[in-house]
Amino acid sequence: MTGTFVIVGGDAAGMSAASKAKREHPDMDVVVFEKGEWVSYGACGLPYYVKGEIEELEEIIAVPKESFIEERGIDLRTGHEVTGIDTDAKTVTVETAEATLEQSYDSLLIATGASAIVPPFDGVELEDVYTIHDPPSGREIREAIERETDRPETVGIVGGGYIGIEMAEAFRGQGLDVHLFEMLPHVLAPFGDMVAEAVEEELVSQGVTLHLDSTVEGFDGDEFVTAVRTESDAVPVDVVVIGVGVQANSSLAAEAGIEVGETGAIAVDEYGETSAPDVYAAGDCAEADHVVTGEPDHVPLALTANRAGRAVGQTVTGDPTPTGPIAGTAVVKAFDLEAGRTGITDEAVARDAGFDPVSVTITSKSRAGYYPGGYPIQIRMMADAESGRVLGASMVGEEGVTKRVDTVATALYAEMDAHQVEYLDLSYAPPFGPTWDPVLTAAKVLNSKLEG
Amino acid sequence: MTGTFVIVGGDAAGMSAASKAKREHPDMDVVVFEKGEWVSYGACGLPYYVKGEIEELEEIIAVPKESFIEERGIDLRTGHEVTGIDTDAKTVTVETAEATLEQSYDSLLIATGASAIVPPFDGVELEDVYTIHDPPSGREIREAIERETDRPETVGIVGGGYIGIEMAEAFRGQGLDVHLFEMLPHVLAPFGDMVAEAVEEELVSQGVTLHLDSTVEGFDGDEFVTAVRTESDAVPVDVVVIGVGVQANSSLAAEAGIEVGETGAIAVDEYGETSAPDVYAAGDCAEADHVVTGEPDHVPLALTANRAGRAVGQTVTGDPTPTGPIAGTAVVKAFDLEAGRTGITDEAVARDAGFDPVSVTITSKSRAGYYPGGYPIQIRMMADAESGRVLGASMVGEEGVTKRVDTVATALYAEMDAHQVEYLDLSYAPPFGPTWDPVLTAAKVLNSKLEG
Repeated sequence: MTGTFVIVGGDAAGMSAASKAKREHPDMDVVVFEKGEWVSYGACGLPYYVKGEIEELEEIIAVPKESFIEERGIDLRTGHEVTGIDTDAKTVTVETAEATLEQSYDSLLIATGASAIVPPFDGVELEDVYTIHDPPSGREIREAIERETDRPETVGIVGGGYIGIEMAEAFRGQGLDVHLFEMLPHVLAPFGDMVAEAVEEELVSQGVTLHLDSTVEGFDGDEFVTAVRTESDAVPVDVVVIGVGVQANSSLAAEAGIEVGETGAIAVDEYGETSAPDVYAAGDCAEADHVVTGEPDHVPLALTANRAGRAVGQTVTGDPTPTGPIAGTAVVKAFDLEAGRTGITDEAVARDAGFDPVSVTITSKSRAGYYPGGYPIQIRMMADAESGRVLGASMVGEEGVTKRVDTVATALYAEMDAHQVEYLDLSYAPPFGPTWDPVLTAAKVLNSKLEG
Repeated sequence: MTGTFVIVGGDAAGMSAASKAKREHPDMDVVVFEKGEWVSYGACGLPYYVKGEIEELEEIIAVPKESFIEERGIDLRTGHEVTGIDTDAKTVTVETAEATLEQSYDSLLIATGASAIVPPFDGVELEDVYTIHDPPSGREIREAIERETDRPETVGIVGGGYIGIEMAEAFRGQGLDVHLFEMLPHVLAPFGDMVAEAVEEELVSQGVTLHLDSTVEGFDGDEFVTAVRTESDAVPVDVVVIGVGVQANSSLAAEAGIEVGETGAIAVDEYGETSAPDVYAAGDCAEADHVVTGEPDHVPLALTANRAGRAVGQTVTGDPTPTGPIAGTAVVKAFDLEAGRTGITDEAVARDAGFDPVSVTITSKSRAGYYPGGYPIQIRMMADAESGRVLGASMVGEEGVTKRVDTVATALYAEMDAHQVEYLDLSYAPPFGPTWDPVLTAAKVLNSKLEG
């Protein structure tokens, strides 16, 4: 297949697709329209840039813009916003600062990403109220907290998801007082209560003031923000960062009559193709099938975006490649803690998906009991009562957590039951774990409960 | 099933079996004969005891002898050596310092472990020539290197397997000069050349003098050892530790007419039962089926022993439980390096098993490229050309290696092909890895090679 492959959006999914298509098929015309100036950046690195551990913002760029153009031969145009898609005529409308143009396509990839949700808080327009979602927003925040005059001393973070947690670490690392506001009883909802409670303890011990079960109503201030207002309180702050979640940028697709799923993200088939022929969607704007439920889900994370983009880039060259299911695997560093989750970890979600969930929680260690320096690892693992199939796990501890999540994620893809996980030959040496790895212990206890 | 369950050997496999049988069936008579005085010890901890990181030898005891007897109700008799088995009469002959006795059994478990191989070196009987295999030998070595007068300054280690590597770290930690002698061109043969070369570089940088391709012929000295003699050299040393491997203690079984496999370990079926009815074998003295080849193998490691013992303990109570296949998963800490392997990592072995091996080697990082403090991780992964099935992997790096081995081990149990591994949803956050985990990158490159 030759022709023109047009891509809307120049971040992980878009640039992965462009690079893969061009590598597989150098004759293909690959055009990328990016409305901003930044392409192929690692948004996940922004908290560490704000913290100052990453000195220059440019370091989070995976591949420089010039390399895409000069080395890979991609027609990459920043400052170009796609404002309309005509799926019958197979054209897109593109606006720049100077002009409006039409571009025809043979294949189209919508890779418009996701945007930070900004609830209509009273005072949200005040100075020093930020969201964090792209490099310019990261730069604004760092400039704000490092400014010479009226340097902020106290920051309010709205939202206790992983971005909120990472930003809390970043601001504490910069010496600020941190107030974290979470509407729900616990932070990190997708990780479950066990992880949340451990992370909350860590946050408090690191000097973060937690406001749980606390709905933010707005922000006080004249020109600059001066306080976060909740139902019961007004907490003085100098800076606010809102991190209450993201939503898929699916309106461009929706306006073109392309189907949007129940999650609010663009519905796709196993190849990432939307309801419109030759129109694909990948990355944070698109759904993906969950490997445990088989149902469409929306988990906007970097690996999914990279991989789905790459698969679409291969598919459009005439080599159909599934984008692959997801497991919702996620890990987060919370100061000195590691937390992770994969699959289904919430019993209500499991029941909704037709399973009969049984869960166990175990505490083990990151090293052999007699080996110096080990830390506790807590694992909560869930299986279906009837089949024994492992549905998911969450875990938390000071070390050795994140890659243990991957063992369970791999087991989910293989649809292993608890007995099969219990009998995996996992590695053992005293500096790295007990003889029975914590994952094996969790599976063993879970299996006993299933049989008992 | 009731009756008498007799166990020969009181370490990992034996005590796991005893504990499980007694827990499942408290009325069962469970008798354990251990010829030594130590039971249920973690031999893997001995290098760290010699190093001094573990202060007291007793710390490596998993469960004290008294607990087995008083809390678990096991008839545990140390200082009792089983010297014969009559599989027709279903009795064993037991010798103590004072007497010889007969014990009948309904079920018998042979859990006699493995012994350090001591080649017939000239001078092997000299003082301060040791093997390391059990707590008393660990104590002897530590007492030797910590003695007040004539304190040793130089140690020769014969054998560059993982015990030799761990002992090198231990002795360097105690301030000794270390000479490591390996007959083969590389240390750590089962881990492959890539790992070996990285480990050798680390050993040298930590001050270990390597003698590769160097066959030890014997030891010089009158009463005490004074030198290690090779074909070409005589290296002055004050202490020698021999760690050239272990062999299954299968002679008791063989003398009773029980089948011993080609590996030299006791042949068993999937439940750990030997060729003699109601006679089981588990742990370092027994074979186990390899999950990739399906063939019997002998990989004497702690997890296998614990698990097979536990499964046999359940089986003898009337609940048949497979001991499970092994993957040969192994990890070792070599000073500041982590090395690991699982499955088949040698192309010749793969061909012998009927596969057409294709291998790739990649270098990735333990953290995101922009995140401070990351280290390179090298992975070598192998698949079968025809099916694409992943056969094994080895890896080495300063951090984040051991649990990545487990991801591959899990994939081996699921018989995943390289494409399936490439599409696993593994965890990502900048402090813990790149967006594409090194395991995914290895699978991606391997998959490209398979397709290309």
